Amino acid sequence: MKTFSLTIAALLATNTYAADLLPSWNDTAPRKAIIAFVERVTKAGAPGFVPVAERIATFDNDGTLWAEQPIYVQFHFALDRVKALALQHPEWQKKEPFRKLLTTPKEQNVAVSEHELMEIIMATHAGLTTAEFEQIVTDWISTAKHPKTGRLYTEMVYQPMLELLAYLRANGFKTFIVSGGGIEFMRPWTEKVYGIPPEQVIGSSGKTKFEMRAGQPVLVKLPEIDFIDDKEGKPVGIQQHIGRRPIAAFGNSDGDLQMLQWTAAGRGPRFCLYVHHNDAAREWAYDRKSHIGTLDKAWDEAIAKGWTVVSMKDDWKTIFPK
Amino acid sequence: MKTFSLTIAALLATNTYAADLLPSWNDTAPRKAIIAFVERVTKAGAPGFVPVAERIATFDNDGTLWAEQPIYVQFHFALDRVKALALQHPEWQKKEPFRKLLTTPKEQNVAVSEHELMEIIMATHAGLTTAEFEQIVTDWISTAKHPKTGRLYTEMVYQPMLELLAYLRANGFKTFIVSGGGIEFMRPWTEKVYGIPPEQVIGSSGKTKFEMRAGQPVLVKLPEIDFIDDKEGKPVGIQQHIGRRPIAAFGNSDGDLQMLQWTAAGRGPRFCLYVHHNDAAREWAYDRKSHIGTLDKAWDEAIAKGWTVVSMKDDWKTIFPK
Repeated sequence: MKTFSLTIAALLATNTYAADLLPSWNDTAPRKAIIAFVERVTKAGAPGFVPVAERIATFDNDGTLWAEQPIYVQFHFALDRVKALALQHPEWQKKEPFRKLLTTPKEQNVAVSEHELMEIIMATHAGLTTAEFEQIVTDWISTAKHPKTGRLYTEMVYQPMLELLAYLRANGFKTFIVSGGGIEFMRPWTEKVYGIPPEQVIGSSGKTKFEMRAGQPVLVKLPEIDFIDDKEGKPVGIQQHIGRRPIAAFGNSDGDLQMLQWTAAGRGPRFCLYVHHNDAAREWAYDRKSHIGTLDKAWDEAIAKGWTVVSMKDDWKTIFPK
Repeated sequence: MKTFSLTIAALLATNTYAADLLPSWNDTAPRKAIIAFVERVTKAGAPGFVPVAERIATFDNDGTLWAEQPIYVQFHFALDRVKALALQHPEWQKKEPFRKLLTTPKEQNVAVSEHELMEIIMATHAGLTTAEFEQIVTDWISTAKHPKTGRLYTEMVYQPMLELLAYLRANGFKTFIVSGGGIEFMRPWTEKVYGIPPEQVIGSSGKTKFEMRAGQPVLVKLPEIDFIDDKEGKPVGIQQHIGRRPIAAFGNSDGDLQMLQWTAAGRGPRFCLYVHHNDAAREWAYDRKSHIGTLDKAWDEAIAKGWTVVSMKDDWKTIFPK
């Protein structure tokens, strides 16, 4: 994965930091639109200028920053947790949805409902302290591999999006993740992989409880949902965590629509972008009828409103880091 | 209110930024302890060094950054909202706790239970959009005056704490508010008054709902508590919003104890400080038996654990900005 280092001198020398930071983008409409937007909001004294403090950009994670096919990464994680904990839970051999997870061959997809997924996550996460959970995620993410490519999941991130994150930050933006995924599943690795610190990660969460264990304070994960950061939940999560409206938002599915609507409805320059997965050769091709990352209503709205739609096939030179 | 401007050159020239930034602190033990801690964590290569990204400092608000006597500022705000809305709610004339708020003379304290306070806040805040609420707070805070001093509430902040916030930030700390007060009651003014942006404010909150009004997306405040950021809630709020443990925490009451315990229990250098209100001449004197800002168990624990306890009377040259 490429890294970008910026010197203070370089930042001071120019208003807009070089768009050379987008080398994996073809010079098609999306790249031009991104650069035009950034130049507009960073030009001091011009009508579209936005102060640094208000340069908030929010990114969905699954399907926007990293691959979500053939299954959500967190689902793979939860599946591995079920297997790791199966000996302690003999009742799972007979109890759905655990039974089917434990008996289906690894290469085969297991259909689980959203409700079942929650049940799995709760059963495998609850009771752990936040510190224990962080360690489990850290260990897992450093070794778990994508079922198709065999690469680490942290290498299944989109190189053009990494460049976009860096380009925005170089121009004074604060970049946030706003994902339906678990907030504590993402935080252990987002700083290293995306340059996004834990305090700029918003996601779904379970409730936790403060308690003393052997004289030491801990936060224990409870088997109770606190917040679902998806669809209508995304603007709610943004308001709760950031307290101001983004000026730029990036997504890939109908689950991101409300975040983009919320972003677009603010005053002044706004930038909304959808990633369209249409590259079956280099990644996956799916949209209106997909169960994962459905892009249907949001696609229509993006077109109607003139939002930027990235064709992965045509607009990106590279998909994954070399 | 004094402001502090730093040049990049000054920041680069020295590791620890000058403790001259603490002019309102007497050179007693608390000031020495603060400076020793900051020098320790910022000294590159030394054993206590903490990377900038991990320099998280959390501050309670009421009684720690601004005055909380004779009533919480937000209670004054809620009271004014009840009066402003009374004509629309004739039923309040006969319904407690509204009746007593509307009939008690202004100068007189009204005793309300925590439950009643919640009822008041819900009744006066719910139904508004977050944008409407922000405007109401912004208007109110720019004119509302302290019942005793007649100064704006934003001038009833503690000058030594403003200097401390600036000193920590000049040394690479990210400063957060972690308050039992309402998150949306604080955010409209914390950046201007404390230099703390909305995304670094954590507080109690009500639930909100995303909806479309006349084709525009809005977030509507619901009459339902989402989160109480007090006592055991403070470490929960810190984990939810920041996702890493502070290395320094500042409070003034038993309601802050769990935040300080959580902070103190991390590895490496830690700094915990309690402000003790013992200056009846310049501010107020209250601790163990006070209903507002009770400092009892936490005081004992601070002494037992060797945390820093500020005597407002002896350790602060000035209380409020000149």
